Amino acid sequence: MNFQDQTSYQIKEKIDTSKVAILPVGAVEAHGPHLPLGTDNILAERLSVKLAEVVKGLVLPTLPYGQVWSLRNFPGSITVSNKSLINFIVDIGQSLYQQGFEIFVMVNGHLGNGAALKDAARELYETCPDLKVLYLFYPGMNSAVEEVRETPASHGTYFHACEIETSYMLYLAPEFVEMDKAINDIPDIPLSADATPTPWEEFTESAVLGDATLATEDKGIYIIDTVMKNMVQLIEGAKKRSQNSDLNGG
Amino acid sequence: MNFQDQTSYQIKEKIDTSKVAILPVGAVEAHGPHLPLGTDNILAERLSVKLAEVVKGLVLPTLPYGQVWSLRNFPGSITVSNKSLINFIVDIGQSLYQQGFEIFVMVNGHLGNGAALKDAARELYETCPDLKVLYLFYPGMNSAVEEVRETPASHGTYFHACEIETSYMLYLAPEFVEMDKAINDIPDIPLSADATPTPWEEFTESAVLGDATLATEDKGIYIIDTVMKNMVQLIEGAKKRSQNSDLNGG
Amino acid sequence: MNFQDQTSYQIKEKIDTSKVAILPVGAVEAHGPHLPLGTDNILAERLSVKLAEVVKGLVLPTLPYGQVWSLRNFPGSITVSNKSLINFIVDIGQSLYQQGFEIFVMVNGHLGNGAALKDAARELYETCPDLKVLYLFYPGMNSAVEEVRETPASHGTYFHACEIETSYMLYLAPEFVEMDKAINDIPDIPLSADATPTPWEEFTESAVLGDATLATEDKGIYIIDTVMKNMVQLIEGAKKRSQNSDLNGG
Amino acid sequence: MNFQDQTSYQIKEKIDTSKVAILPVGAVEAHGPHLPLGTDNILAERLSVKLAEVVKGLVLPTLPYGQVWSLRNFPGSITVSNKSLINFIVDIGQSLYQQGFEIFVMVNGHLGNGAALKDAARELYETCPDLKVLYLFYPGMNSAVEEVRETPASHGTYFHACEIETSYMLYLAPEFVEMDKAINDIPDIPLSADATPTPWEEFTESAVLGDATLATEDKGIYIIDTVMKNMVQLIEGAKKRSQNSDLNGG
Amino acid sequence: MNFQDQTSYQIKEKIDTSKVAILPVGAVEAHGPHLPLGTDNILAERLSVKLAEVVKGLVLPTLPYGQVWSLRNFPGSITVSNKSLINFIVDIGQSLYQQGFEIFVMVNGHLGNGAALKDAARELYETCPDLKVLYLFYPGMNSAVEEVRETPASHGTYFHACEIETSYMLYLAPEFVEMDKAINDIPDIPLSADATPTPWEEFTESAVLGDATLATEDKGIYIIDTVMKNMVQLIEGAKKRSQNSDLNGG
Amino acid sequence: MNFQDQTSYQIKEKIDTSKVAILPVGAVEAHGPHLPLGTDNILAERLSVKLAEVVKGLVLPTLPYGQVWSLRNFPGSITVSNKSLINFIVDIGQSLYQQGFEIFVMVNGHLGNGAALKDAARELYETCPDLKVLYLFYPGMNSAVEEVRETPASHGTYFHACEIETSYMLYLAPEFVEMDKAINDIPDIPLSADATPTPWEEFTESAVLGDATLATEDKGIYIIDTVMKNMVQLIEGAKKRSQNSDLNGG
Repeated sequence: MNFQDQTSYQIKEKIDTSKVAILPVGAVEAHGPHLPLGTDNILAERLSVKLAEVVKGLVLPTLPYGQVWSLRNFPGSITVSNKSLINFIVDIGQSLYQQGFEIFVMVNGHLGNGAALKDAARELYETCPDLKVLYLFYPGMNSAVEEVRETPASHGTYFHACEIETSYMLYLAPEFVEMDKAINDIPDIPLSADATPTPWEEFTESAVLGDATLATEDKGIYIIDTVMKNMVQLIEGAKKRSQNSDLNGG
Repeated sequence: MNFQDQTSYQIKEKIDTSKVAILPVGAVEAHGPHLPLGTDNILAERLSVKLAEVVKGLVLPTLPYGQVWSLRNFPGSITVSNKSLINFIVDIGQSLYQQGFEIFVMVNGHLGNGAALKDAARELYETCPDLKVLYLFYPGMNSAVEEVRETPASHGTYFHACEIETSYMLYLAPEFVEMDKAINDIPDIPLSADATPTPWEEFTESAVLGDATLATEDKGIYIIDTVMKNMVQLIEGAKKRSQNSDLNGG
Repeated sequence: MNFQDQTSYQIKEKIDTSKVAILPVGAVEAHGPHLPLGTDNILAERLSVKLAEVVKGLVLPTLPYGQVWSLRNFPGSITVSNKSLINFIVDIGQSLYQQGFEIFVMVNGHLGNGAALKDAARELYETCPDLKVLYLFYPGMNSAVEEVRETPASHGTYFHACEIETSYMLYLAPEFVEMDKAINDIPDIPLSADATPTPWEEFTESAVLGDATLATEDKGIYIIDTVMKNMVQLIEGAKKRSQNSDLNGG
Repeated sequence: MNFQDQTSYQIKEKIDTSKVAILPVGAVEAHGPHLPLGTDNILAERLSVKLAEVVKGLVLPTLPYGQVWSLRNFPGSITVSNKSLINFIVDIGQSLYQQGFEIFVMVNGHLGNGAALKDAARELYETCPDLKVLYLFYPGMNSAVEEVRETPASHGTYFHACEIETSYMLYLAPEFVEMDKAINDIPDIPLSADATPTPWEEFTESAVLGDATLATEDKGIYIIDTVMKNMVQLIEGAKKRSQNSDLNGG
Repeated sequence: MNFQDQTSYQIKEKIDTSKVAILPVGAVEAHGPHLPLGTDNILAERLSVKLAEVVKGLVLPTLPYGQVWSLRNFPGSITVSNKSLINFIVDIGQSLYQQGFEIFVMVNGHLGNGAALKDAARELYETCPDLKVLYLFYPGMNSAVEEVRETPASHGTYFHACEIETSYMLYLAPEFVEMDKAINDIPDIPLSADATPTPWEEFTESAVLGDATLATEDKGIYIIDTVMKNMVQLIEGAKKRSQNSDLNGG
Repeated sequence: MNFQDQTSYQIKEKIDTSKVAILPVGAVEAHGPHLPLGTDNILAERLSVKLAEVVKGLVLPTLPYGQVWSLRNFPGSITVSNKSLINFIVDIGQSLYQQGFEIFVMVNGHLGNGAALKDAARELYETCPDLKVLYLFYPGMNSAVEEVRETPASHGTYFHACEIETSYMLYLAPEFVEMDKAINDIPDIPLSADATPTPWEEFTESAVLGDATLATEDKGIYIIDTVMKNMVQLIEGAKKRSQNSDLNGG
């Protein structure tokens, strides 16, 4: 399953059989006092491994740097620009296409990468017409989240180092969580955060957007199970579309 | 030492104390029947960890994709362009500079990245004048190699999946080597390989440039020890230059 | 208020007094059988004029081309890339900064422009540190929409030529609406639309995402009033931050 | 005729019938005490509408920002770079080509856009071989101008807010002209203006290059009639070349 | 005077004394049956040497490739894009600025380079504020040309391999002219050549735009003398402006 | 043989017969007290002429500006970036391909250009598949150098204005050498020069890397003869590959 552990002699057949490349994409970013800087990388990686088992995909090495504009001034955060990220991923995608993959799945652990991954996917849509490209950031998580969360969301789309993300970690990578350091730090995110460039230090000192003390493994399991089902469904759908293209001489 | 395993709360002081960021840079690339596609990543990573212990550096997550033009048509190889690689690394470097690092060390496990890392370092030289940037590809290995190698080099600068690189792996990551599959496949590299774009399939089927069966852990230890000393010396030199800049108000 | 109707001799003083430049940004895009291709331009323009009256801003000529990837294959749609759009707007912003403006407000009538405007704003944040840049796409509309809508939303973030947008037009530009041609055409937007490049012709023939026949002027008034209050508040907030910067020698 | 006032349902047939897209391109730029900043936009727009009537073309929304390097320091001028302008227009052209247009006419009201429009047209010539692209800046005006002008030209190619351009406005958009503020301000343009970057404030305070008081509607009519005939002839020529390409399977 | 024939040890003082760098810029382009492909390079070079003697400038090696879009399909023409040409020249200019030059004169022998050189000069205007940059294409030649030419110009701005340019060669580089092969081939250049991308093979087979048989050394001398006076005057003007900047601490 | 001295009328047949374009690429760079700034240009040019005679190639005008980062601070050095150099050369190569050339040989006189020429060749490999591109920097010189040199090399790959390069000049362009000014100035190049951006002024004042007083014409002849044989062999090889492509419908 782990792509880079294979030899070149072994991989050809595995690509032909699987057709599905899974790229974990994360970031190095402040995640409060209880989660490591690499949280988004770890989550993307663990999700990818689980996913690969189900869809018979091959997991590529994690791309561990992402667009971290909002938190770039917090200790330990490392950011790359949207432009650099797009070009880097487009190159990877084109290379996978040359290698014979038909499905390229980006499992994204960092919301800030979203716009870049979408743009990269669209560029690949033009240049590699037979490659199906997916960018997955916890697809369909919202309904499951609503069922389990005990505190309201701090923001319409952001969640970070909070009840939710910490629950993901408690399920997928508990050895990296220090729950005794988890804090409750619900910020008051101003409307302007969605309307003007707003470094997060303007509204939070901890980078925690919620009550991390309420995180539990069970919540993580509940949401991630839903997310995983959606991911699998999306990839199976892409496989079908890909086969149809093949049949039609695509 | 492992940067991304730290929390944001812990890292500030460690950056201030260490000042040295170490980025392993590798590639996913065919390495014959006995070494995994991720060989360059694994080597860069293991070297970085060893180095970090000596120079009190912080090891960043590995950048696992590199410029693999020559071997891009071999099964499993993934390539990104020089341009994309340069821009990505420049972004990382500028971010490290903002975070307070004074020394940015790229430990490169893949020769093909050389030109891009050099260009990236020069761009950082202009934009982050106080940041010392090092790009290290087994510095000073040649003399030690000459002492231990039993077969002549296939090429003036290339070595790949051969007696030498396999020895590195036997020392640094033996669990990834399948010596029973190692082969002796010394290619006849034409002069034109240095004068015109030449995909390696034109002169090798295995991607092994030498006699991998002659690799031993001892050879790996002997060369890597030399390389490690050189790396340490280069970083200590950079630290001194950095302190001098500080004293002079640089 | 209309910037380009002024002469150069008149404008200097007006810039000094107002400090607020308002740029309507829209798109040329299919909007079903009852709304014109220029709907997003018209809405951005009318909103800008209303807004300018309250905040004493100067309305620039509308930038009438936007990123219309999703609907680009529908008759009459015209699209520009994110990259071109970002660069164009950054140039305008830098020029406004040179002219003495302190607040640059983009009133956006087209959701697809969102990522580009955000990126442009961030680039201006770096290069014109004293310029406050706002990108406004019906800020805070969601709560008001929930109060008045009679049919559920087709999608978490998209709304298009539907009950909502048609209501905006009935309020702000009724002369461009042909209500007798309005249709009810609620599509079933698949989960994959948020996970893979998905031209909208895959799930809608009309480009109407909802029941446009339920649109009313009153709904438009109700939502737009909320939006307008939010816009005003955001600009007043930016003015305060700008004045603070001035006081602090920013 | 007005493209963006049509609905998507109406436009398909109109594109098929007309094949001619007309894009007014102007600028926001100082035009002395008697003409508005938007003069070039207004002229491009009015010319386009007249032209569209004759050639059965569709008038796109005006692109109201142009390259205004020379006058960028005058109050109210807004400039974008050649590069941004080229890329933006190339995107529009490619989109029009996808929509089925065969002739793309840029009616340019601002001399400073000339180099960018020419470059954009050449790029489209390579990428959209069947699209005929025209960039029109008062084609063939010189002979007519010579017949009516009462004062000599200030410069070989520039004319600005002077006897000529003001006459255009008196014909095409008299409601925007304040003739009582028109001045006679013939500058002495040094030879160096064509040989080194020369902001116009170095030789004019008013941005008027001539005697605007001599402008008359009749002069405007006389010149614009000639220009209009030339524009029509150029478009008819392009139509013929386009049909020939079609016949030849182009 | 010839820059590259000096040693590094000699040049420092010469730069300090002269302050004026002269770069001949030409092209490789079809010039009919009687003039060589390198005509524009030869003219730029000879003019530069003459000019350097008068203004005490240093002549750099000729940049012999230019933008030759219009004639690129004629045998022997070589073209580079505006973008590549601009970037290349900007780099040279910044390097000259670092070397201590205060005046950077481009002596251009090829009209097609005009837009690129102007853009390059403007970019240097921003990035090297103390460097005066001149782009000279036979400045002020028109009046002198009118006095001597025996046939009317084929075009308002183009002249090529004709009575005029051949006369330049007969004066400056007669050894490269084969007058017995000179032809009279006045094309009928359509209005569309200034309004749509028009490769010159559409209106000329020879690339001669006029009657080359009428060329004489005397005509060349007459025009070039005027041009030379203008060039000298422009450089002297730039020197004065440069010294004023120095005095004002610019 | 000299391309730009031909007329357009003469060149078509010569291109068809020869198929080989030779571009000398050099640099303007400090070369100590005894060699001119243009040394690399002169060497590239003289080598190209010799080579053209043997392989029946056409010599293009020299591209006299290169990447001179390391020596850019020495008096008289002029540098362009890798990026600008790559784009410029790619344009030239594509133009030569359009003109009917099948072999594009870059004879490089400046080591610093190496990475850019290699990248340019790879880009042409993708875009002009039938064009064979060679980048030649004294191919195979090392063995011959070892036989004649009297002092050890200062560096593994660099040689500059030393025993070797001065010998080249004594053979190919003796009129530009001032042997009485030649010096012996062997620097101690630190290991860090290959690991961090290192302007050469950090280890040499003269830019001479060796003992130039030991240079002789005979050494130059000996090495250059080897190099020339290799160049010829490489071009003949490229011709064969090109003909094979032709036969196979390439």
